[in-house]
Amino acid sequence: MKPTILICNDDGIEADGIKALTKEIRKFAEVIVAAPHTQQSAVGHSITMANPIRMKEVMMFKDFYGYAIEGTPADSVKLAVHTLLKDRKIDLLISGINQGSNTAINIIYSGTVSAATEGTILGIPSIAISLTSYTYPDFTIAAKFATKISKAVLKNGLPRGTLLNVNIPATKNIKGVVITKQGKSSWDDTYEIRVDPGNRKYYWLTGSMLKIDKTIEYDVKAIDENYISVTPIHYDLTDYKMYDDMKKWKL
Amino acid sequence: MKPTILICNDDGIEADGIKALTKEIRKFAEVIVAAPHTQQSAVGHSITMANPIRMKEVMMFKDFYGYAIEGTPADSVKLAVHTLLKDRKIDLLISGINQGSNTAINIIYSGTVSAATEGTILGIPSIAISLTSYTYPDFTIAAKFATKISKAVLKNGLPRGTLLNVNIPATKNIKGVVITKQGKSSWDDTYEIRVDPGNRKYYWLTGSMLKIDKTIEYDVKAIDENYISVTPIHYDLTDYKMYDDMKKWKL
Repeated sequence: MKPTILICNDDGIEADGIKALTKEIRKFAEVIVAAPHTQQSAVGHSITMANPIRMKEVMMFKDFYGYAIEGTPADSVKLAVHTLLKDRKIDLLISGINQGSNTAINIIYSGTVSAATEGTILGIPSIAISLTSYTYPDFTIAAKFATKISKAVLKNGLPRGTLLNVNIPATKNIKGVVITKQGKSSWDDTYEIRVDPGNRKYYWLTGSMLKIDKTIEYDVKAIDENYISVTPIHYDLTDYKMYDDMKKWKL
Repeated sequence: MKPTILICNDDGIEADGIKALTKEIRKFAEVIVAAPHTQQSAVGHSITMANPIRMKEVMMFKDFYGYAIEGTPADSVKLAVHTLLKDRKIDLLISGINQGSNTAINIIYSGTVSAATEGTILGIPSIAISLTSYTYPDFTIAAKFATKISKAVLKNGLPRGTLLNVNIPATKNIKGVVITKQGKSSWDDTYEIRVDPGNRKYYWLTGSMLKIDKTIEYDVKAIDENYISVTPIHYDLTDYKMYDDMKKWKL
């Protein structure tokens, strides 16, 4: 029997990445697509509670309809699982293919990763997949690898609470696949201060990543060296070392 | 010399919690308040990149002005640090006092925690403080404990990359303070399906927390037992056990 796979993203249901992924995954699985109706990058793990959410069917291919959801990536996953797929077993969730890498500190800002995290919270083995370029138009290698890693997860399973964050270099010259750790690199960001026609200031975020990771055991460096990076992540944020150390504090 | 403390929140600059906190912290510190101009709960770690951000001064008390920022909690921290406080050393960041607890899985949805996380990313010792009720009007105990934990952090410091997530029970009968781990409890959520006057369906998130944590070493249980909960958390999401286990996978 074909596996049932839920596909989501944060670039919105019209994005090229989700279309390329859906096309490839449909070759071996029953696919349901539930994704935000518009671009939702850097939304982090937002969920919509104060307002209702709407959902509508949209044609993605001649023979395939997906669900466009007026919400965040995490909303899309939650709503699909609790309504559309209420009585079905979901074997896997794939979020992507995102345009732009989700490595190091970016993981916590990432809508792509948050959709996969939400899947994991709901007990579904989940994978986030990103192609490391905003402009590279060829999703072929990324979509093929999505199939490969999906089949590996369907076969091996994932521990409860763990998801995979996959980054694929935007090149034809992939050197291989490495299992990586989340990099320590972070943003050297700042704000450009501009003035609007009404003479009021506004601020625009800009900056570049300070790359401090030196070996391919870290996601940032692995993709820079043209390796596909697969990082197992979880959402237990407890700092266990500090948990022990803090017992000395007098509070 | 007085320490310099940046205060933020996710309930917005007009919220009672940030006012109570600011009033108390001003007793011993130079305080700068930079907070969203409106309620931003459950925004997760969103940052605004595609659009510019605006900021304006607003009177919080007769003798004190804060900065209201048209953005998320993380935006507020980033913008304050990079513009208002560009040339100043910030000794501490406090996010809160939030109305409603931020424990277990809620930590990843929390705007309150995301502001403190952003502070940590920027190298500032940071604390998130929540009062475990949406309605309890008395911030006295929470504000006093904010002073206590702030002074402890100013004295002991925090490891780079670690922040404190503090939850304070909404009661006068506090039993004590415990250092806790992030609980494993999660939401048993679902969507109510309603129909609008135009006969279109809409979906509203609802649910309750499935409490599986049995001892006060977990945040959820600690606050239920009327203990103040202090959880050291970090944003290294790597699952190191799975990192080792996955090396057996053939990819």
